Amino acid sequence: MKEMQEKILKDGKVISGGILKVGSFLNQQIDIDFLKRMGQEIARLYADEKVDKILTIEASGISIAVAAGMELGVPVVFAKKHLTSNVDGAFYSANVHSYTRDEDYSVVVSIDFLSPGERVLLVDDFLANGQALNGLLSLVKQAGAEAVGVAVAIEKCFQGGGDEIRERGIRVEALVAIESMSSEGIIFRSN
Amino acid sequence: MKEMQEKILKDGKVISGGILKVGSFLNQQIDIDFLKRMGQEIARLYADEKVDKILTIEASGISIAVAAGMELGVPVVFAKKHLTSNVDGAFYSANVHSYTRDEDYSVVVSIDFLSPGERVLLVDDFLANGQALNGLLSLVKQAGAEAVGVAVAIEKCFQGGGDEIRERGIRVEALVAIESMSSEGIIFRSN
Repeated sequence: MKEMQEKILKDGKVISGGILKVGSFLNQQIDIDFLKRMGQEIARLYADEKVDKILTIEASGISIAVAAGMELGVPVVFAKKHLTSNVDGAFYSANVHSYTRDEDYSVVVSIDFLSPGERVLLVDDFLANGQALNGLLSLVKQAGAEAVGVAVAIEKCFQGGGDEIRERGIRVEALVAIESMSSEGIIFRSN
Repeated sequence: MKEMQEKILKDGKVISGGILKVGSFLNQQIDIDFLKRMGQEIARLYADEKVDKILTIEASGISIAVAAGMELGVPVVFAKKHLTSNVDGAFYSANVHSYTRDEDYSVVVSIDFLSPGERVLLVDDFLANGQALNGLLSLVKQAGAEAVGVAVAIEKCFQGGGDEIRERGIRVEALVAIESMSSEGIIFRSN
């Protein structure tokens, strides 16, 4: 998505530890018109996949998932994060390690909101090492649902998570894929 | 909003501790068409207020804020929650006490995303004791911006937070206002 590449080059900030700050338009302040176009692009990519439901994870995946859900006309479910794995009620749960914060947390979804046979599209803002998305994929599998693919706003290819998921035969689409980045500049992967 | 009253009566679950579970359509699974109508209703209520920006708080306020932002055509900013008040960079920050979890946390927004003079509409899913919204109102004040009002999906009137904010002269609109609730039933406040 050319427009996002331009926004990243104009407004994004590369900081130490392989972190790209895009708070000005994606994950703290949201440019609503741009968000709609992201939703349209995700809907275009997965138009033929008969998506039943979108699954994302709180918090910054929610806006993109909602935009895509509006375009695809399907409900959006967001997994919650808990620092402990002790959750009341009947939930699907998966353990996730956060490299950024060096801590483990659980992602949980009530069994009421994922059903066997449903075709689920996974949406998030960033795909780096893939820990969070692998957690979501585990929830989909536990429910007996089917992951039709993954759509993220920004993939950081150099952290390898996206290619690992592709190697498992799952479709991964990134609106922007970053091959490498440093304070010197950003190199995008060409599609 | 009659439709939400009906959804609450049909799908909501009152559990102990004054908690209403509406995960099936509002804050874990999102009914996209209904979400759009919530956004339209918030936009209708604040149509004459020249809103510049919507401010919400992660995580479950984001979807409603995005729906309202799409209708009003304004950017959405979401405050982040931190369990400590030590935050790097230049942020506005306010302390919030969560009665549900009996813990304090900070709500923070980068100074880049709230500016003096901006007319800010505050949006959230629930308004109970008003702690989170009072935190957001503090951020708006710190920035020298103006709070044009509050819009929430569900106000739990019996917890008093909404009326306290109204007493400070700030407009508060709830799509549904619950006067009282128990396992016996739910009584709505009539508008």
